[in-house]
Amino acid sequence: MRFRTLAAVLVVLVVPFAWQALASRQATNVSLVIANGIVVTVDGDRRILNPGSVAINGSEILAVGTPAAIAGQFRASETIDATGKVVMPGLINTHGHAAMVMYRGLGNDLALMDWLQKYIFPAEAKTVSPEFVRIGTRLAALEMIQSGTTMFADMYYFEEEVARVTREAGLRGVLGQTVIEFPVPDAKTPADALKRAEAFAQEFARDELITPSIAPHAVYTLDAATLTAASNLAKKYNIPLQIHLAETQTEIGMSQERHKMRPVALLDSLKFWAPVTIGAHGVWITPDEIKVLMVRNVGISNNPESNMKLASGTAPVVGYRSAGVNVGLGTDGAASNNDLDMFEAMRQAAFQQKLVNMDPRVISAPEALELATIGGARVLGQQAHIGSLERGKRADIIIVNMDRARQTPLFDPVSQIVYVTRGDDVDTTIVNGKVLMRGRKVLTLNEARVLADARQAADLVRKAVGQ
Amino acid sequence: MRFRTLAAVLVVLVVPFAWQALASRQATNVSLVIANGIVVTVDGDRRILNPGSVAINGSEILAVGTPAAIAGQFRASETIDATGKVVMPGLINTHGHAAMVMYRGLGNDLALMDWLQKYIFPAEAKTVSPEFVRIGTRLAALEMIQSGTTMFADMYYFEEEVARVTREAGLRGVLGQTVIEFPVPDAKTPADALKRAEAFAQEFARDELITPSIAPHAVYTLDAATLTAASNLAKKYNIPLQIHLAETQTEIGMSQERHKMRPVALLDSLKFWAPVTIGAHGVWITPDEIKVLMVRNVGISNNPESNMKLASGTAPVVGYRSAGVNVGLGTDGAASNNDLDMFEAMRQAAFQQKLVNMDPRVISAPEALELATIGGARVLGQQAHIGSLERGKRADIIIVNMDRARQTPLFDPVSQIVYVTRGDDVDTTIVNGKVLMRGRKVLTLNEARVLADARQAADLVRKAVGQ
Repeated sequence: MRFRTLAAVLVVLVVPFAWQALASRQATNVSLVIANGIVVTVDGDRRILNPGSVAINGSEILAVGTPAAIAGQFRASETIDATGKVVMPGLINTHGHAAMVMYRGLGNDLALMDWLQKYIFPAEAKTVSPEFVRIGTRLAALEMIQSGTTMFADMYYFEEEVARVTREAGLRGVLGQTVIEFPVPDAKTPADALKRAEAFAQEFARDELITPSIAPHAVYTLDAATLTAASNLAKKYNIPLQIHLAETQTEIGMSQERHKMRPVALLDSLKFWAPVTIGAHGVWITPDEIKVLMVRNVGISNNPESNMKLASGTAPVVGYRSAGVNVGLGTDGAASNNDLDMFEAMRQAAFQQKLVNMDPRVISAPEALELATIGGARVLGQQAHIGSLERGKRADIIIVNMDRARQTPLFDPVSQIVYVTRGDDVDTTIVNGKVLMRGRKVLTLNEARVLADARQAADLVRKAVGQ
Repeated sequence: MRFRTLAAVLVVLVVPFAWQALASRQATNVSLVIANGIVVTVDGDRRILNPGSVAINGSEILAVGTPAAIAGQFRASETIDATGKVVMPGLINTHGHAAMVMYRGLGNDLALMDWLQKYIFPAEAKTVSPEFVRIGTRLAALEMIQSGTTMFADMYYFEEEVARVTREAGLRGVLGQTVIEFPVPDAKTPADALKRAEAFAQEFARDELITPSIAPHAVYTLDAATLTAASNLAKKYNIPLQIHLAETQTEIGMSQERHKMRPVALLDSLKFWAPVTIGAHGVWITPDEIKVLMVRNVGISNNPESNMKLASGTAPVVGYRSAGVNVGLGTDGAASNNDLDMFEAMRQAAFQQKLVNMDPRVISAPEALELATIGGARVLGQQAHIGSLERGKRADIIIVNMDRARQTPLFDPVSQIVYVTRGDDVDTTIVNGKVLMRGRKVLTLNEARVLADARQAADLVRKAVGQ
């Protein structure tokens, strides 16, 4: 008995040291370690490691832990020192039209229909071409990488150009060819658009970073047959559906006039919903409709800045969350925002919900951060792979400066992220383990060239609207 | 007759050339020309000169004109090339508590009373000292200069420290010693506070950049006698009054309980108003009260971010403007914002008003810009001297970068200023003709030292709230 006790004590005392020695000798080789940052994991426990390190091999996060633990377990080909900086999941923009950065600031402060009819539609009719979409999406990709967005949902025209630029930039995307009933630059009829959408789904079916999707525009711009056909394509290829959903009161009126039903009821009656459906905006939604969205597993993209600037209204984000509906954040196109900064989207989501619910406690900083990361991942059906810093997930990570005067002092990293940080504070952007920006230098796009091309293409826009 | 006609023709033909030649030979020497920028004057005609130049001598703007006209008329000791950059009036922050940057991000997303009682009041009681106020105000001044604020209104404790730092930093300020009924770090009683306020008014009576003011805290923290005494001080020295006015519904209730009147009625019955009165927030104000404020020439400081984050409500900015009440913008203290960026204040003011009025046309970009410049100048009683780029006004000017990806393309400078620009885009900050920041380097404060001091002082705050 004595001997066994002694042996047990020895095991307890010695084994950890021996294991550590062994581990450090047998350290695993990894491609990248981000060392010694303030690691905001956005995992289920909202863990913050301060300091903390992240070990990445190839595209995968192998471990998140204390600097000592990570240094003991892993030997890195490359180490990024993140001392004093926040290390957090890349931001996920769940709704937008990337190439519309080309119409940034074109017509402002107008009633929605005036703005669309005097500026956006004429500009689109005369300017949208494969080249224009390529130039615009490159500008958007540059802005997204610079502001810490690592994944974005997109619906526009010539979406194959969007997809190619997404690959070139190294971003992750859920991309969908717009299906709309009136003639647009890449399709004369909804049938054309559906054909293009299917071809797009096939072309990008097996891409590591791109998830093709089907993007019927909205219930007020499509008839029931086309909505159903679009839904069937999504189901056939088992890919996400994206649709503008209950964005404005006008849309509700148009839906009732045309379809004799509100948007959610119409889509439910058509069995429209796919396994992953992204409802963009979801502003004018009743409590009963929230239940339908929950049961049908429809995710909502909340676009606070667009909804405020266009006076569209306030999405019931608090109601969605308490009903268990997945909610993420989006910027919408830059024409109605006017930028793609997801840090501002977090701030605005919190501000708008606090104001409208008359309660400063709702959409707290940790909740706003979740909306922009894991919440967005859930909306896009990607929560198994991204949205938080956890072992086994893809390495979509940003490193954010926290040393500016306006970020001083630093009491609470999450409050600082949501209430004072901006896209410009992002130092490093990593997608799928690949560094896209480091020290604010974008490595996958030629910034000067992208800006020069965009400025030149802007002349087409000026001409189109007679400015 | 013939001769006279010939002579007349000669005069018409020759005199302009001769005058120009003479003028260029007799060019006026000036201290500074800002050349070749996109000059957004914010004058009565909303003139934009693209390109344009501004000639400054000493503290005064001598002329705003085309680059050729300015080059012809003036010879500058120093020229700043502003090609591609916006040249605009410095931003005016009409309400805040500068030193509260030291509590930035301390407690968030709490009900107002919880936040105040668990975080702010205990922190203030244990940390506020002359040195703490000096360190905090330096940090705030650094942030303001870096984000293009050239004038600010302030009410806090140990306001003489605020004033000294304001001088040191080179900023313009309307500064007031807080008068409040409960014991605070610089005054045990309201009588003490009034004494300090009067001493402060005397000490800074003849300062070029500082306008002393009297700052009774609010109707719910002061009795009628102290409110009247504070008002009398302002009238005696002919200086502005600052007061928190109808910020929250709770305040209205407290006013009715204590004074049997709503705040505006109470102050009107006391003949409280001075020639310049700044009502901070002005959220819960009825249409009838708007009329009173108009007649009494009370200016309102709209603080959209603080009002949204704390869920205080929405000020009737549209109503104020159509009634002719002067409105400016403020950030409030950074503890409830969480920064001092007046570009964000412009954006938020526009967003909040559009949302709540359900009209995207209200508070357009040009109006939001006016709120942050000439509107603020009017609220502070300084419109004769600052708030726009016009001949004879003081040279409070900022030069703002417009070349970022998120600012591309540039269709409309004012839309870009309001909807996508941030404090960090400010390149150069000039107050009273003196360059305080150039190429983002602050010249009047030692940035590293200011940040280090603030980080050290933050430990006091952590200790005070037990973190």
